Amino acid sequence: MQSEQHPRVRPGATPAGIPEAPSDGFVRVRGARENNLNDVDVDVPRDAVVAFTGVSGSGKSSLAFGTIYAEAQRRYFESVAPYARRLIQQGHNPKVEHIGGLPPAVALQQRRSTATARSTVGTVTALSNSLRMLLSRAGTYPEGAEPLDSDLFSPNTAAGACPACHGLGEAHTVDVEALVPDDSLSIRDGAIAAWPGAWQGKSLRDMLIHLGYDVDAPWRELPEGDRTWILLTEERPVVDVVPLREHNARPYKGTFISARSHILRVLAESKSEPARKRALSFMRTGPCPGCDGTGLTRAALAVTFAGRNIAQLGALPLTDLAAVLRPTTELTDPESATRRHSSGEANEVAVAITRDLCSRVDVLLELGLGYLGLGRGTTTLSPGELQRLRIATQLRSGLFGVVYVLDEPSAGLHPADAEPLLALLGELKSSGNSVFVVEHNLDIVRAADWVVDVGPDAGQAGGRVLYSGPVAGLAEVTASATRPFLFPGAKASAGHDDVRRREPRGWLGLAGITRHNLRDLDVSFPLGVLTAVTGVSGSGKSTLVGDVLAGVVGDHMHAPGQEAVSRGGARVSGGEQLDRVVTVDQKPIGRTPRSNLATYTGLFDAVRKEFAALPDAVARGFGPGRFSFNVAGGRCETCQGEGFVAVELVFLPGSYGPCPDCGGSRFEPETLEVAYRGRSIADVLSLSVDDAADFLADIPAAARSLRTLRQVGLGYLRLGQPATELSGGEAQRIKLASELQRVRRGRTLYVLDEPTTGLHPADVEVLMAQLHRLVDGGDTVVVVEHDMDVVAVADWVIDLGPAGGDAGGTIVAAGPPCAVAEAAASRTAPYLARRLRANTGVPTP
Amino acid sequence: MQSEQHPRVRPGATPAGIPEAPSDGFVRVRGARENNLNDVDVDVPRDAVVAFTGVSGSGKSSLAFGTIYAEAQRRYFESVAPYARRLIQQGHNPKVEHIGGLPPAVALQQRRSTATARSTVGTVTALSNSLRMLLSRAGTYPEGAEPLDSDLFSPNTAAGACPACHGLGEAHTVDVEALVPDDSLSIRDGAIAAWPGAWQGKSLRDMLIHLGYDVDAPWRELPEGDRTWILLTEERPVVDVVPLREHNARPYKGTFISARSHILRVLAESKSEPARKRALSFMRTGPCPGCDGTGLTRAALAVTFAGRNIAQLGALPLTDLAAVLRPTTELTDPESATRRHSSGEANEVAVAITRDLCSRVDVLLELGLGYLGLGRGTTTLSPGELQRLRIATQLRSGLFGVVYVLDEPSAGLHPADAEPLLALLGELKSSGNSVFVVEHNLDIVRAADWVVDVGPDAGQAGGRVLYSGPVAGLAEVTASATRPFLFPGAKASAGHDDVRRREPRGWLGLAGITRHNLRDLDVSFPLGVLTAVTGVSGSGKSTLVGDVLAGVVGDHMHAPGQEAVSRGGARVSGGEQLDRVVTVDQKPIGRTPRSNLATYTGLFDAVRKEFAALPDAVARGFGPGRFSFNVAGGRCETCQGEGFVAVELVFLPGSYGPCPDCGGSRFEPETLEVAYRGRSIADVLSLSVDDAADFLADIPAAARSLRTLRQVGLGYLRLGQPATELSGGEAQRIKLASELQRVRRGRTLYVLDEPTTGLHPADVEVLMAQLHRLVDGGDTVVVVEHDMDVVAVADWVIDLGPAGGDAGGTIVAAGPPCAVAEAAASRTAPYLARRLRANTGVPTP
Ligand SMILES: Nc1ncnc2c1ncn2[C@@H]1O[C@H](COP(=O)(O)OP(=O)(O)O)[C@@H](O)[C@H]1O
Ligand SMILES: Nc1ncnc2c1ncn2[C@@H]1O[C@H](COP(=O)(O)OP(=O)(O)O)[C@@H](O)[C@H]1O
Ligand SMILES: Nc1ncnc2c1ncn2[C@@H]1O[C@H](COP(=O)(O)OP(=O)(O)O)[C@@H](O)[C@H]1O
Ligand SMILES: Nc1ncnc2c1ncn2[C@@H]1O[C@H](COP(=O)(O)OP(=O)(O)O)[C@@H](O)[C@H]1O
Ligand SMILES: [Zn+2]
Ligand SMILES: [Zn+2]
Ligand SMILES: [Zn+2]
Ligand SMILES: [Zn+2]
Repeated sequence: MQSEQHPRVRPGATPAGIPEAPSDGFVRVRGARENNLNDVDVDVPRDAVVAFTGVSGSGKSSLAFGTIYAEAQRRYFESVAPYARRLIQQGHNPKVEHIGGLPPAVALQQRRSTATARSTVGTVTALSNSLRMLLSRAGTYPEGAEPLDSDLFSPNTAAGACPACHGLGEAHTVDVEALVPDDSLSIRDGAIAAWPGAWQGKSLRDMLIHLGYDVDAPWRELPEGDRTWILLTEERPVVDVVPLREHNARPYKGTFISARSHILRVLAESKSEPARKRALSFMRTGPCPGCDGTGLTRAALAVTFAGRNIAQLGALPLTDLAAVLRPTTELTDPESATRRHSSGEANEVAVAITRDLCSRVDVLLELGLGYLGLGRGTTTLSPGELQRLRIATQLRSGLFGVVYVLDEPSAGLHPADAEPLLALLGELKSSGNSVFVVEHNLDIVRAADWVVDVGPDAGQAGGRVLYSGPVAGLAEVTASATRPFLFPGAKASAGHDDVRRREPRGWLGLAGITRHNLRDLDVSFPLGVLTAVTGVSGSGKSTLVGDVLAGVVGDHMHAPGQEAVSRGGARVSGGEQLDRVVTVDQKPIGRTPRSNLATYTGLFDAVRKEFAALPDAVARGFGPGRFSFNVAGGRCETCQGEGFVAVELVFLPGSYGPCPDCGGSRFEPETLEVAYRGRSIADVLSLSVDDAADFLADIPAAARSLRTLRQVGLGYLRLGQPATELSGGEAQRIKLASELQRVRRGRTLYVLDEPTTGLHPADVEVLMAQLHRLVDGGDTVVVVEHDMDVVAVADWVIDLGPAGGDAGGTIVAAGPPCAVAEAAASRTAPYLARRLRANTGVPTP
Repeated sequence: MQSEQHPRVRPGATPAGIPEAPSDGFVRVRGARENNLNDVDVDVPRDAVVAFTGVSGSGKSSLAFGTIYAEAQRRYFESVAPYARRLIQQGHNPKVEHIGGLPPAVALQQRRSTATARSTVGTVTALSNSLRMLLSRAGTYPEGAEPLDSDLFSPNTAAGACPACHGLGEAHTVDVEALVPDDSLSIRDGAIAAWPGAWQGKSLRDMLIHLGYDVDAPWRELPEGDRTWILLTEERPVVDVVPLREHNARPYKGTFISARSHILRVLAESKSEPARKRALSFMRTGPCPGCDGTGLTRAALAVTFAGRNIAQLGALPLTDLAAVLRPTTELTDPESATRRHSSGEANEVAVAITRDLCSRVDVLLELGLGYLGLGRGTTTLSPGELQRLRIATQLRSGLFGVVYVLDEPSAGLHPADAEPLLALLGELKSSGNSVFVVEHNLDIVRAADWVVDVGPDAGQAGGRVLYSGPVAGLAEVTASATRPFLFPGAKASAGHDDVRRREPRGWLGLAGITRHNLRDLDVSFPLGVLTAVTGVSGSGKSTLVGDVLAGVVGDHMHAPGQEAVSRGGARVSGGEQLDRVVTVDQKPIGRTPRSNLATYTGLFDAVRKEFAALPDAVARGFGPGRFSFNVAGGRCETCQGEGFVAVELVFLPGSYGPCPDCGGSRFEPETLEVAYRGRSIADVLSLSVDDAADFLADIPAAARSLRTLRQVGLGYLRLGQPATELSGGEAQRIKLASELQRVRRGRTLYVLDEPTTGLHPADVEVLMAQLHRLVDGGDTVVVVEHDMDVVAVADWVIDLGPAGGDAGGTIVAAGPPCAVAEAAASRTAPYLARRLRANTGVPTP
């Protein structure tokens, strides 16, 4: 029981002061009220894999993360270092009366990844450390070289960083090509574009004349040595200049400066923004010449293992890295390690380190991540890839007796890769831990030891535990939204399955795509239909759809004349059939509490106008701006309309507390006196979408937005719910709703990358119905998907593969789902076939 | 296995990548090498109370804290928040190959307490929170008052702090008395001491004349109103001043300012240090008049429970607080809580909160801490008191499945209080945790489920696990230093027991002592003998010995004439028989790595002189200063001779890393070229005391120091071991050794407060032998002690009590041990009697 809270006298509660009965194998939650949880009591087994299920917004995360994980963190940090708690997370005391049998917890979340610019696959997995140790202790050194400390093999240490680029691997240099863009010009005619204009440029030219250079010949005809000197010399000769063809000009002494030195001097010294901008246009950012872009010192790069230096090893896909190291692991009679030999590749240290490395890489290969290299920056990974790396890494953490709380670990995973993930969760458990996963993937849920089903619906209509027990028992719980999907016998699977496939009304062709692992690929997307792009992780789906397709069509919109403009070098045909391309992703709709669905969809504008038109508002002279919390006037100035104030932390991201003045209402008191149908503007922001649909029914623009929000299943959200409190799936559906409310003309291409992430199968049905509405309206939808429920109802499927990375990037099959389901080379085919059979009543094998 | 370390190929080690077998109930440590640990493999059971035993310096802490706890912390933080680890502790990777089955851990250490100026018994235990909630929700409010938020009852919140003193409870005010120290003087003669001197003072006087005040009458004869105005007015009248008796002076306009305003203005504005100092001498710090020193607002102080406001409740000893709250817990038919009534003392919230409070206070009463009040600052608590508060508080933390690592929880505990402590450790265990204690108290060790005995000796001669198993099995382990004490049958208990008691050679009398719970107490200490002061926790031992005795005799030394100068108002008799008083405590011998035992004992001076006298040093012109790491010259300037460099952390105490230049040797290379008998000055600092005793045998001053260090059992320490790495017991014995090496004349009083803390019974024997040596040399020793082994061999015992706090503070018995053992009212007597019987062979009951 928490001392900060009101201790309720509750029958059966543990008497205060007497610790509860010892470990009986369960985490016992009593009286949980976080977010929408409705006084939840639930017992969850430890040392088990437990799946938390329920529709989006039902309260799964509020229970697993907001209550169980948050309380475990709070307790541990309060015991270990009370002052550190605020630093580590927004110290939040979950609303719960009591939790017994709760060990410390570790969360692996998708959203809040700690990916930073310098973190890489190698640093997140700690494999880079081992690789550095391998080079240091067992590498092949140049003749006579001293062994190097393992720090020397990291560009992130003071000792290991290339002195020229400080370990960044990048350098900014003057682009010599750009200095003279047209070499048919003479100097007098302006060959040296980098020179300053006006008087200064003329002066430089006059100095060259005085120095004896030919300023009238075309640049390309000057001797090589002259050209180099003029552009690059570091000398600064002082020259007598006799100005030519100038009125009243008198001789003077000038200092000649090369074009490159001039650019560098402007960047170092000039305070004129236009001058700096112009100088920057002659600079180029590229691999540092001191270290060939590795960020390392020459000494470190001279050390090799299996013929490769550390940069080369780090650049290999993990599959290839494992193949390179494997022979060493198999040495049967290694030498003992000494620091005297110039190579330790055959010694016992090499064997030990490579064995350790390979065993850890193997886990990643099993998870279908073999196409990644150690040097890959984590910011370029998908959330699912990053999470799987982190889960695999946890296996090595040696933690025992903790609760791991995971957020949809199957996200981004091809069905073919689900098995190894399950095995991994099982290993976390058998190492002595509890594994709690918020999951929608039914294969994962079915394999769990226990399921906690939350519902029945979202928001206020959810927040109850409908079932907590072994998976089979859920078959009896009629209120559960999960049951019909887990036990399809209980209810015929819903959906569009039997609907006739649509015919394309045209084609968009992309030819010669070369990007990441796509090499000179040609592909055609059908227009006016719903296409699913499938393939194992790393096969190239996101590259093709998110990068190339969305990018190319977008570029085409902006410059419709040019056929061959392109990302990835692609040539576009048929682009004239489209007007717009819209990417509907799971990125937040805003990064501060200033954004919410009311501002994003524009419905708040309509509401504010209505408020400003009220007689009371007119009498007070309040315009629409008065009812905004984003501009001064009506908002609370203490929190500047945020409702929250930042709590200062010295060097970590700040955290927020409620505003002491407006108590979170975001407005100053007089503004709140104006009421529409008895409610203030703050009251309106605290309505749910469902309630607002009634209350604002007379405001047409608002009513239209609210209708589409309900159609995408977001009726439970509050209008003012800050963007920072919405899940990725909620953000995506808000974007979709904003699209649905537009007037459309059938010339839009919608691109969605894994829209089902975070969605319950029941939510997926709602989402798909809306996507089909878009297509029925004539638009085109392309989704990247792993969920066979979605793929099965697409009009067209493009399957990439056959595997990930260099073993992928080609089209294995394309056609209607039934055709792709029969493609022999496709790893997707068997899963799609099974799903199609299930729908047609043919029993699964 | 840690990736940073060299993975050894070790038979039977867990194959990399495959997590070990699931929980089999043990923490399995393999290849531990932290500090002196000698490649230790040990299995320690979880869900058990495990005692780690061994002589001081054997490696117990290195195993329990330095290895097990540190590794658990490292793993957890690396998983949860890699960046936070450095903030929370000096991120240290213990030297260990592998630990399996290790849950997250929480350390409750004595030394590194996080006591801060504002933390109190109430905040550490979180009882203050509950008390605030009680007042807020169930207090009696003045007629018509609104209920107050619980924050309002804390001086540490913005809302609750007294506006006058910002919650500190203290205010700095102008001391009106001091403004006019001699009221027989007239203003002209300088009555107003606070006035500025010179021209400014004269000007103020002239203004008063102009304003019609009498500046020639004695101050005390001025009318009350005039005196107040002159000293305190806030008016600043502008006055025409006609300077008197001044050459060439001309009339001008001046601004009169009262004495108080003048002082405040100087403090606010003056940049002159002497002027500020002088102004400060007229200021007084005292209880804030706005809140009577409570730091709270008037509104909060008006709310009461059981007739007392929150400040009064917080000032009660816990015993009395429990008595005040108890009746409410027993209400059988409470009203339901509403916010309407002016008093909620009889409602269900009151019952719930008081029950919760009483149950938590009861735990503290059982631990013998009933004499403490909630408001008591933690900085005034003994380490043992603070640790017991923290252990009791952990019972409420709700942590499950963690390893608690405790550092001698019995420290400062009277034998009578050992039972409740054992019960508490048992409760931590039965709440689902593992309890690992580093302990010397044999009653605690005997009650443990398991014992890990480290030894056999200290430093290099230790670092091995001699036994790990149920306590009884240790009886077979002949190498164990713990065995003879746990199983006295195995070896007759050593010691001075049979020695004839010494007769006092005089008495030091203290009469009328009044301090803390001592009230008008008279006590006599015998001189030339060893006296033990005993009594339960809080009975007044530290106050009598540490505060009064050491203080009074100290003062007497400095002002021998004044008989009645005194702390606690005591009158001293017989003080002329003493020349010196020395407090030998466990405080560090220095707070930075610049101090070590070589510098502290002075032996390093002798060594440096010897180095400077070497022909090589003379030739190079190196004096003794060249061999010091504390002054510029021979030391490494990168680390300024510390061997370490501070790693900057923005707002937490810094941590240290080895110096990159000298690698920790602390000296620059040329200094290290000078060698004494083949070793550099850095080599000498890295010798152990034992080795140095041989090596430096020819340097008499060094040899004398080393001999005494060995006599107190510190032969295993390295000469250069920084003060920051020494335990409290080691520091105390270094101080003792420094004393032993002095030439003494029998006129010194040695005062020691619990010198056995942190000492193994075998160490206690060594310590006692040295204390007896001091007494045999004619000096006087007074120790505060709970260890009956020590009390039994004292010449004289003074037993305070009968209980703690107000129920203590009197002398229950005084006399030789055998006499005190028979005192009926003494809670110490039964334990002493049992110990004495054991020595004379009478079986214990
Ligand atoms: N930080 C928050 N503040 C207020 N409401 C929230 C917050 N986070 C979630 N909610 C609301 O609580 C309900 C449950 O959300 P959540 O636990 O995230 O559901 P799920 O994980 O099942 O999708 C929803 O109505 C959601 O909008
Ligand atoms: N930003 C990037 N930088 C380098 N390589 C990338 C990047 N994004 C993807 N790749 C590589 O391109 C290939 C296809 O990846 P991706 O398009 O993400 O596949 P999918 O979406 O099918 O999982 C993989 O080998 C991947 O490592
Ligand atoms: N931080 C440290 N650095 C170096 N040596 C240390 C440090 N702490 C302890 N030691 C040494 O390690 C040995 C074991 O010490 P410790 O584990 O504290 O013993 P114990 O807890 O049994 O008294 C001793 O020789 C001690 O001087
Ligand atoms: N710094 C202090 N401020 C207030 N009270 C104190 C302080 N130190 C001790 N006391 C009180 O004086 C009494 C005797 O305490 P102490 O001398 O520490 O006892 P002992 O040493 O026997 O444990 C106790 O009631 C204790 O709370
Ligand atoms: Zn570089
Ligand atoms: Zn505000
Ligand atoms: Zn005050
Ligand atoms: Zn140094």
